[in-house]
Amino acid sequence: MPKIVDHEERRQEVAEAVLDIIAEGGVGAVTFRKVSKTTGWPVGAINHYFVNRRDLLMAALVRAAQLSAERQLQVVGSRQGVDALATVLHEELPLDRRRLAMSRVFLFFYAEAAADTDIKRTIDSYLKRWRRQISVVVSQAQALGEIDPLLDSDKVAADLVAWVDGLGQHMLFNDDLRRSVARNSPILGWISRLSGGAAPAVLVSARKPK
Amino acid sequence: MPKIVDHEERRQEVAEAVLDIIAEGGVGAVTFRKVSKTTGWPVGAINHYFVNRRDLLMAALVRAAQLSAERQLQVVGSRQGVDALATVLHEELPLDRRRLAMSRVFLFFYAEAAADTDIKRTIDSYLKRWRRQISVVVSQAQALGEIDPLLDSDKVAADLVAWVDGLGQHMLFNDDLRRSVARNSPILGWISRLSGGAAPAVLVSARKPK
Repeated sequence: MPKIVDHEERRQEVAEAVLDIIAEGGVGAVTFRKVSKTTGWPVGAINHYFVNRRDLLMAALVRAAQLSAERQLQVVGSRQGVDALATVLHEELPLDRRRLAMSRVFLFFYAEAAADTDIKRTIDSYLKRWRRQISVVVSQAQALGEIDPLLDSDKVAADLVAWVDGLGQHMLFNDDLRRSVARNSPILGWISRLSGGAAPAVLVSARKPK
Repeated sequence: MPKIVDHEERRQEVAEAVLDIIAEGGVGAVTFRKVSKTTGWPVGAINHYFVNRRDLLMAALVRAAQLSAERQLQVVGSRQGVDALATVLHEELPLDRRRLAMSRVFLFFYAEAAADTDIKRTIDSYLKRWRRQISVVVSQAQALGEIDPLLDSDKVAADLVAWVDGLGQHMLFNDDLRRSVARNSPILGWISRLSGGAAPAVLVSARKPK
């Protein structure tokens, strides 16, 4: 069924163009005209797939969630234990142009979720999937003896996801914080504190410089 | 100078009315007509103090930040150490109507900050003040021997504030998470992990139920 594939591919291409536009100029810069210019398709063709601006933004949100999930799977596949956990969480911070766009998209929709049940549901699914994935990585680190096995991996995951999400947002408002996190990510330090009685072998980045 | 006092009091009254309206119906419900109905003042009188809707919302943001700071000072004044730290952080979570409104206001402005330098600056000041205040409480807990004295209190504060802010937002999207946090706040558990070598005497709420 090549037509269906085309249809999905085109929607995806437009969604990624919307993400590029947001990376460049923020959510306010998203218009059909701008998407037409970025993709090279006439406005009418885009309108065939997306009825209105909200549709365009929703597609960008869904695509951002997919891209984030794919990237997380990649990272987790090539590492293990606390190393995998710290890396996959660090990957979500807005430390380059692509992730900056992602953070802006999610923040925009977080605010919109208050007044739109569809958006709220999409955001909730996205966060649930993120928490589930982190919970799996936490369990693996527990099995390796790197995290206290008495901890509830679901609760630890919910807290880590909330923290990384909040930190990513705060980095949008303050360049000093962004630079400080880029230089010295605090993630591994906090995770090392989950090791229970064992002395944390990994770096505790929050320690004062000597 | 009674006139100036009046002026400030009136602005404040309107700002608090805007917060009430947001608590009830979200940011979208804020209109001059609605503010007039809530305060009992004619639209023209409100217009004397606030030129447009953005002005109204900015006043609500500034007032929300003030109220949050006042409440934090109150909490910190009557407690000490890790107890003060956990309580002041817990106080920021959207666990009642008032704090739900606060969370919505801040989230709305976080999203707006991408396109508005004034808002971005206001948000940044608010977060800086919040971090500074938490850093002071962390230092006090360090002086009491309840938190590892080798930790950098500013960095610990930045992480705790990011986490509580992110958690508060996630609670807006998922009622199960809100109930779970209300039943059993994870804050004290994480803080207890900052105690360094000492066995944490306080509750670790993330522990699995037996």
